Order: sequence, then C-alpha cells, then structure tokens
Amino acid sequence: MRDALVAAAFRLFLERGYEQTTVDDIVALAGVGRRSFFRYFPSKEDVVFPDHERCLADMTAFLAASGAEHEPVRRVCDAARLVLLMYAENPSFSVQRYRLTKQVPGLRAYELSVVWRYERALADYLRDRFTGRPDGNLQADVIAAAVVAAHNNALRSWLRSAGQGDASTTVDHALGYVQSAFGTPSAAPASTTPTARPAFSPLPPLPPLPSLPSLPMPPADEVPDDVVVVVCRRGAPLWRVVQEIETTLGRD
Amino acid sequence: MRDALVAAAFRLFLERGYEQTTVDDIVALAGVGRRSFFRYFPSKEDVVFPDHERCLADMTAFLAASGAEHEPVRRVCDAARLVLLMYAENPSFSVQRYRLTKQVPGLRAYELSVVWRYERALADYLRDRFTGRPDGNLQADVIAAAVVAAHNNALRSWLRSAGQGDASTTVDHALGYVQSAFGTPSAAPASTTPTARPAFSPLPPLPPLPSLPSLPMPPADEVPDDVVVVVCRRGAPLWRVVQEIETTLGRD
Repeated sequence: MRDALVAAAFRLFLERGYEQTTVDDIVALAGVGRRSFFRYFPSKEDVVFPDHERCLADMTAFLAASGAEHEPVRRVCDAARLVLLMYAENPSFSVQRYRLTKQVPGLRAYELSVVWRYERALADYLRDRFTGRPDGNLQADVIAAAVVAAHNNALRSWLRSAGQGDASTTVDHALGYVQSAFGTPSAAPASTTPTARPAFSPLPPLPPLPSLPSLPMPPADEVPDDVVVVVCRRGAPLWRVVQEIETTLGRD
Repeated sequence: MRDALVAAAFRLFLERGYEQTTVDDIVALAGVGRRSFFRYFPSKEDVVFPDHERCLADMTAFLAASGAEHEPVRRVCDAARLVLLMYAENPSFSVQRYRLTKQVPGLRAYELSVVWRYERALADYLRDRFTGRPDGNLQADVIAAAVVAAHNNALRSWLRSAGQGDASTTVDHALGYVQSAFGTPSAAPASTTPTARPAFSPLPPLPPLPSLPSLPMPPADEVPDDVVVVVCRRGAPLWRVVQEIETTLGRD
C-alpha cells in the first residue's frame, strides 16, 4: 500500500503540480483512506522522500558497526554510498523527484533538512573516532560536510543526465577527492602561507626502495651548501619522492 | 522601526515562546501596524534573522569585487568572515537567537536554507575561478561546504560559550584548517592509493627561479632512462620543488 501511495502521489504531482495536489487527491487515486496515508507518511512532503528514513537508519547502523580497523574517512565515504544506492535503485523515480524538488521551494527546504541529518550522522561518527585528536570536533564537521558535498555533486550530475551512465563511478571519483584531501594516506594540511613548507601526514610503513642504478654524481665538495640534489626513479610515486626530499631537508 | 520590531519580537519570543507569539502580538508591542511589519519582513521567521539578506548581499558584492590576484580559497574564507562579523556585532542578540533556533524546528529549517544560500554564493564564486580546471565544479562544491562547516563549527563554539572570548580567533583557526587542506600552496589531493602519483592543483604564476650556481652534473648519456635528477636550492619551498619534479616527470 505504501508503494501504491507513492506511485499515486507522483502521478498527480507530475500531472497537476505538487502544490495543486492534496492528500485527499492522493488517497482517492490510490483507493485508500486518509488514515492509511498518515500511517506511512507524516505529511505530503514525506511521500516525496519515502526512503530517506530507512536510508538514514541503514547509515546509522552501518557506522555503528564500524571497528577500529576502519579508516574513518573511508568509512564515512562508504556510508555516503548507501544514499547513492537508494537513488540508483530506481533511477526514473529519482530523476522525477529531482525535477520536482527543483521546482518546489518547500521540497527543497525539506531536502536540506534531510541532507543535514545525513551530515550529522557522519559527523557524529567522525567525532567519536577523532576523540582525543586536537580539533577532532572541527575536523569531524568539515569532513562530513565535504563528503556530503562531494556525494551530492556527483549525484546531481547523474540526476541531471536523467540517470544515464554509471552513478557509482561518478560518486567514487568525487569521494576520492575528499579522501585524498583528508584521508589516510594523504598529504595533510600545509601551512597557509606561500613560503612555508608543507607538512606531511604520517604515511604507512613502506617497503624498502629498490636500489638505484649506480649514477655518477658530482663530488660532494663541488655541490654548494644551499643546493640539494635529489635522484629518484622516474616511476617512483611523487609522494615518495617528496618524503625523501623532506627527510633530506630535515636531516641536514 | 525595523530595530523596534526585532526588539519587540525577541522580547515576546523569550517571554512566551516563538510559536506562541503572533505577528499581531509583535506589532502591538512595537506600536506599529501589520503592514509595517510585512514591509520589513516577509514572515515571522524572517524577523529572527533580520541581517542575513544584507550579509548575503555584502558577501556577493565582496566576491564579485575579487580579482585574479586573490587566491580563491583564501577569498572564500574571507567572505565567510563577513558572516562572523554580523554575529559579532551584537553578541547578546546572536546568543539569544542561537538558543531560540535550537528550540524551534521551523527556525532550524529556515537557518539551513540561509546557510545553503551562503554556501551557494561561495561555490558559485569558486566554480567561476576554477573554470577550466579538471573537477572544478566538484572542487567548488566541496570547498564551499568545508568553509561553511568550519565557520559554523567555530561560530557555534562561540555561541555556546554565550559569546565569551574572541570569536575571530576561533573562526580563523577553523578556516585555517580548510585553507591548509585545499588552499594554495598545499599538497593537493593525492590519490587514495599509496602508490599513485598525487595530482597538484594549479598554482599562481611564479617569479622566475633565481639562477642556480653552476653545478657539475653527470653527462646525460650516463643517466639511466628511468632516473630523474632534480637540483634545487635548499631554501626553496617544498611545493616549488614538487612542482619542478611534476613538470619534469610530465614533460618527459
């Protein structure tokens, strides 16, 4: 009956417009009574977003089931993917709703409040994981907001394309941007002044570098004091090279 | 008269509660007619946030007055500080409103829509500045969300402390976190896998490097193909060294 109510509601919203459709119209088309409607949906707005409560509950359960072995930023990205799954379950419905929400300010406000609840769920989890970290509370809020913004940017692209293409790939790419900025391993916050030297976050232990081929180098006494010569394999990851330079600069 | 209406409204909201206060109550206490109220405020909710429209206009004008010389992430952080200034102009009013907003779900929803408009203003500016950058649209959305989250985290701390302490310092610190993650110069997003090569965001045009002292180098034909030799001044900022390596690796 719940699905029938949603189907009836959307048919009317698309035919007449959202504002012009009453709950009475919806229940008449679905062939049920008003009480049945309100058993499932507290208001007309809720029928537009029938799955968010379930998705929020799934997300909360997913985060609650996390352990210390889960890297926190990756975990909130994975939690955000649950929202994508909900949208991708039924692309045509999601696209219809997207178009409707853009047209009706009240629905846009409703959606903002839903997004805010997702963001709070992610931030609460991160805050817990960042307990004892300096600025843990701040970082939790900022990362949660960044994850939600990245997810929604990708989701909107997909919805604007009328649900064509692979939503997962787009969302993975967007979340990858956030993970690279805040996750582990990653270049961590650098100083804000242009001349300062960026700091790098601790990286996981590395396998030993492959030995470099023997290379003729200028004799040490011919290298001016303020010059550093770095020799690296072309294939070496750049962050590894940077780490080597950091170590060299720091050591001397 | 506008200020008198705000003062009357808040007096009643605090005495009776927000929901229990009508526009008629407010105009009666302020000694004006209903039309005067609606000349200034479209609804009862708007009287709770009397300065956001002005602040949004200020922020938009501030961003529109930006030039190429402004580092974009720093610029949106500075734009966010305009919101703080508005709150800090009248700490006791801001603290009262914060407490009221926490209690009234309708006001919370209203506030979310205001926050969303600030975020859009920042994202629109960044999108424009990031034109032509790969993922410019995504980065604009993520950075705008991060700036707003950081600002609001600091603002809430200050409001929760009943407006004690220096709000600017707290907000500066929070925005510094975002600038360090996304601003220039900074190690920009690395890939999420430790072995991949990080991408670096475009940096502003640089002055020419000072000429390096003549340095004996191994003859080119003695350097194996897969090895890169980088020579840099010890005092060079690390990001500059990284950029050189990037360029070298990319060119070959």
